Amino acid sequence: RLPLALIAGPCAMESREHALEMAEAIKEIADKAGIGLVYKSSFDKANRSSVASPRGIGLAKAVEVFAEVKERFGLPITTDVHEIEQCAPVGEVADILQIPAFLCRQTDLLIAAAKTGRVVNVKKGQFLAPWDMGNVAAKLRATGNARVMVTERGASFGYNTLVSDMRSLPIMAETTGAPVIFDATHSVQQPGGRGTTSGGERRFVPVLARAAVAVGVAGVFIETHEDPDNAPSDGPNMVPLKELPALIDQLVAFDAIAKGTTKGRVA
Amino acid sequence: RLPLALIAGPCAMESREHALEMAEAIKEIADKAGIGLVYKSSFDKANRSSVASPRGIGLAKAVEVFAEVKERFGLPITTDVHEIEQCAPVGEVADILQIPAFLCRQTDLLIAAAKTGRVVNVKKGQFLAPWDMGNVAAKLRATGNARVMVTERGASFGYNTLVSDMRSLPIMAETTGAPVIFDATHSVQQPGGRGTTSGGERRFVPVLARAAVAVGVAGVFIETHEDPDNAPSDGPNMVPLKELPALIDQLVAFDAIAKGTTKGRVA
Amino acid sequence: RLPLALIAGPCAMESREHALEMAEAIKEIADKAGIGLVYKSSFDKANRSSVASPRGIGLAKAVEVFAEVKERFGLPITTDVHEIEQCAPVGEVADILQIPAFLCRQTDLLIAAAKTGRVVNVKKGQFLAPWDMGNVAAKLRATGNARVMVTERGASFGYNTLVSDMRSLPIMAETTGAPVIFDATHSVQQPGGRGTTSGGERRFVPVLARAAVAVGVAGVFIETHEDPDNAPSDGPNMVPLKELPALIDQLVAFDAIAKGTTKGRVA
Amino acid sequence: RLPLALIAGPCAMESREHALEMAEAIKEIADKAGIGLVYKSSFDKANRSSVASPRGIGLAKAVEVFAEVKERFGLPITTDVHEIEQCAPVGEVADILQIPAFLCRQTDLLIAAAKTGRVVNVKKGQFLAPWDMGNVAAKLRATGNARVMVTERGASFGYNTLVSDMRSLPIMAETTGAPVIFDATHSVQQPGGRGTTSGGERRFVPVLARAAVAVGVAGVFIETHEDPDNAPSDGPNMVPLKELPALIDQLVAFDAIAKGTTKGRVA
Repeated sequence: RLPLALIAGPCAMESREHALEMAEAIKEIADKAGIGLVYKSSFDKANRSSVASPRGIGLAKAVEVFAEVKERFGLPITTDVHEIEQCAPVGEVADILQIPAFLCRQTDLLIAAAKTGRVVNVKKGQFLAPWDMGNVAAKLRATGNARVMVTERGASFGYNTLVSDMRSLPIMAETTGAPVIFDATHSVQQPGGRGTTSGGERRFVPVLARAAVAVGVAGVFIETHEDPDNAPSDGPNMVPLKELPALIDQLVAFDAIAKGTTKGRVA
Repeated sequence: RLPLALIAGPCAMESREHALEMAEAIKEIADKAGIGLVYKSSFDKANRSSVASPRGIGLAKAVEVFAEVKERFGLPITTDVHEIEQCAPVGEVADILQIPAFLCRQTDLLIAAAKTGRVVNVKKGQFLAPWDMGNVAAKLRATGNARVMVTERGASFGYNTLVSDMRSLPIMAETTGAPVIFDATHSVQQPGGRGTTSGGERRFVPVLARAAVAVGVAGVFIETHEDPDNAPSDGPNMVPLKELPALIDQLVAFDAIAKGTTKGRVA
Repeated sequence: RLPLALIAGPCAMESREHALEMAEAIKEIADKAGIGLVYKSSFDKANRSSVASPRGIGLAKAVEVFAEVKERFGLPITTDVHEIEQCAPVGEVADILQIPAFLCRQTDLLIAAAKTGRVVNVKKGQFLAPWDMGNVAAKLRATGNARVMVTERGASFGYNTLVSDMRSLPIMAETTGAPVIFDATHSVQQPGGRGTTSGGERRFVPVLARAAVAVGVAGVFIETHEDPDNAPSDGPNMVPLKELPALIDQLVAFDAIAKGTTKGRVA
Repeated sequence: RLPLALIAGPCAMESREHALEMAEAIKEIADKAGIGLVYKSSFDKANRSSVASPRGIGLAKAVEVFAEVKERFGLPITTDVHEIEQCAPVGEVADILQIPAFLCRQTDLLIAAAKTGRVVNVKKGQFLAPWDMGNVAAKLRATGNARVMVTERGASFGYNTLVSDMRSLPIMAETTGAPVIFDATHSVQQPGGRGTTSGGERRFVPVLARAAVAVGVAGVFIETHEDPDNAPSDGPNMVPLKELPALIDQLVAFDAIAKGTTKGRVA
């Protein structure tokens, strides 16, 4: 039972400069809190609500920047892939390939990601039960790559709302045998809730993150930005960078108790 | 307000012989009922629950068979695409390209489908509100192709269950301005409900189809098979071919009343 | 398989004069459409969102008015009971005692209602599955009174929203063996949706009523008012009286087809 | 911000002897853990799934036993009321009157409970949004009794399933201004899930209790029994008495961190 890890970064890679600044700042916070860090950003927002929303910096540019972040700060990297063709080039630099929730059942994408040999972290679709992730993990392992992670990011609950079922964390651990991550950022999303963009309620990020860590998880996923309200995507859900240290400190404290307990925890 | 159309066929294309037999049989039923028919089959089941489930006949083979079905029986064809690269070759033969529900927000796939110039029929994701389909239709129309259709196939309702909200039919008609299809087959699916495959309750296909047609829709989507319990996919949801004529007759009768009315209908 | 019946009236009894006027007007509409009518009004709104909302005319006064409606227009009467003590006096005049959805599991209330010997119509709780109504019907029948009806009025779907699962109509028919009513008024309610009162979307009443009648039901429940926007309760959901005739005509036409069919219907 | 309190006891009062034994045993556990205890049992199970299920010891007998528990062990008492007439006699002995979730909108019952002058603890209906509890608390306070508590016990999530939305805890605290209790026992219930009785998954009690305490609550509600599998009601959800000490110790540890924090907590 390893201590809690942190997957963090701005939702979208905005520029080389911004990525380097964010990586440095978050690394400093993580180091102070004594928590392991994986740096996350997306190079393409492939499923925006509206066609008019910005898409991102693109794969080629992002791969270079990720390589620089790795080298400068010694941080493992994760990013999400949307097309089979993206897996190989992303696998050159990313330590963890993330499969978006909407795509968690696309067999060919899962297999292409697994074939890179990298860790594959699959977000549970908003339309799936936690026990359904057992088949998803099995698809990945059928390639011979057993380095699988799964992420909870909320389940559909009526229209334009997600709910985080905390029972899903031990259920996914049992049915996949994989480390379970709690994505506190997208779990507070209100899909489609602002007309042409998704809304969200940032104030519930600490609420849900605390709950998940108390239940017991391998890691938390928290997107952060120095100025979320002006970020190109997921602004309503991102935690302001200056609030991250206090939140991480809390989570580390809860994790220490959770990992020392013997009942109801994620095994 | 055109009369009800029927999109029907076996879920997966099994062989040239089976496709020709099914197309002939369904065409005969549709002709007798006086309902327009679009023949549907999938060449690849790209998001099966389990990696061990059969995938399908493949694109190249299917394109040939579809061409033969079109020529022999004069039927328009629809099938689903999962990858950007599939759109152009499928667009050579299919009159309507169908976008799977899980992929309804993948911008590049939508655009690639629209660029074929064919009609694009997007299934509403189980995780979307009906009004969210307005943005989806706008993504397609931004390409200059205004030939858009949208399909209701159920919304997530707790775990392993879908519910068909009949209000979604007029809401989608209003927010997309597109013809609305009701998929009575996948609306009765129990996603992940049988462990490594999805379950379903065939007996509710007529129930939901009748409800949708009474509300008022442009078409119904009904998968059918001469022996559903031995079909390679969606068996629990498919209507036995021999029960199709009576069902279609009912739906045509309801449609006549629905289309003649002036209140509460899909405009 | 009897033809469709109509349960209708203003949500709350406002005054003797208003009740007589409404009963006369609705009876005329029902007679023209050739549909059987049960007159409905509530004497007490016992579970309003806010304590400041009006409650109603009270039991004693209502019993007198109901008796006059029965005598003058020859109409059967239904109203809802909330307390054990109300059952006997209400049973003196009402032909059908209605159990509110929130109270559908209160054993003593069910038994007290059944002991009047009147028909008992239980609304399915928003928190119940349709098959759970089998136990509810059994509670009533255990008293020796087998005159049971059950009503669908929507299921909780996220917050402040209900969804009408049309599969629940045949499921309730099978599991209870009782006539199934579809309440098209409360099914479009948005519980708590306007802060201190519930909202609703009247425009979906015909949509859902048509769907339910096409599936096959014993009756529809539709609250109506000559001026819904100024009614003391359920205004957002009530159908304006002047729109009722066209709606009833449609439903009668759908019912004729539904009752003549042999598949997927409520047995 | 007071430390966490515990509301605990067997679901149903079985006999005087059993009540005294359970009160003594739970008090010992609570004293060792340094947590305040309120003893809970029901004298009547008024809304059982089936009419054949046992109902309970009855009000008159229970009042005597509660008085003896109070006197012997110095414990405050809580029990649930279902009828207006029960409020006054229960209020003679109970320190907290609990309103069942199904009845949380019944105005007259709320008012009768509040008029006893005792604390009134209202369980949020499975059909309500957390913000809807603001009106419920206002109904109580309109009587002049401001001693209000509210309890989360899960929200309807599809059929026969509840989900615990951890965001509801801070939302209820904000909208009611009242202490918030998390009912870890009924939150894991599967309503109607075993045919004629409700099912449940006891193994998730610690999971959800930990999550709620980490979010920050005034108290947890946990039903316990020395032999849950043979208890007359709620057996599938009750924690075996011998497992209670370890669970309480965990919760007290989480509470200490939660109450020391400054973000995302229940104010």
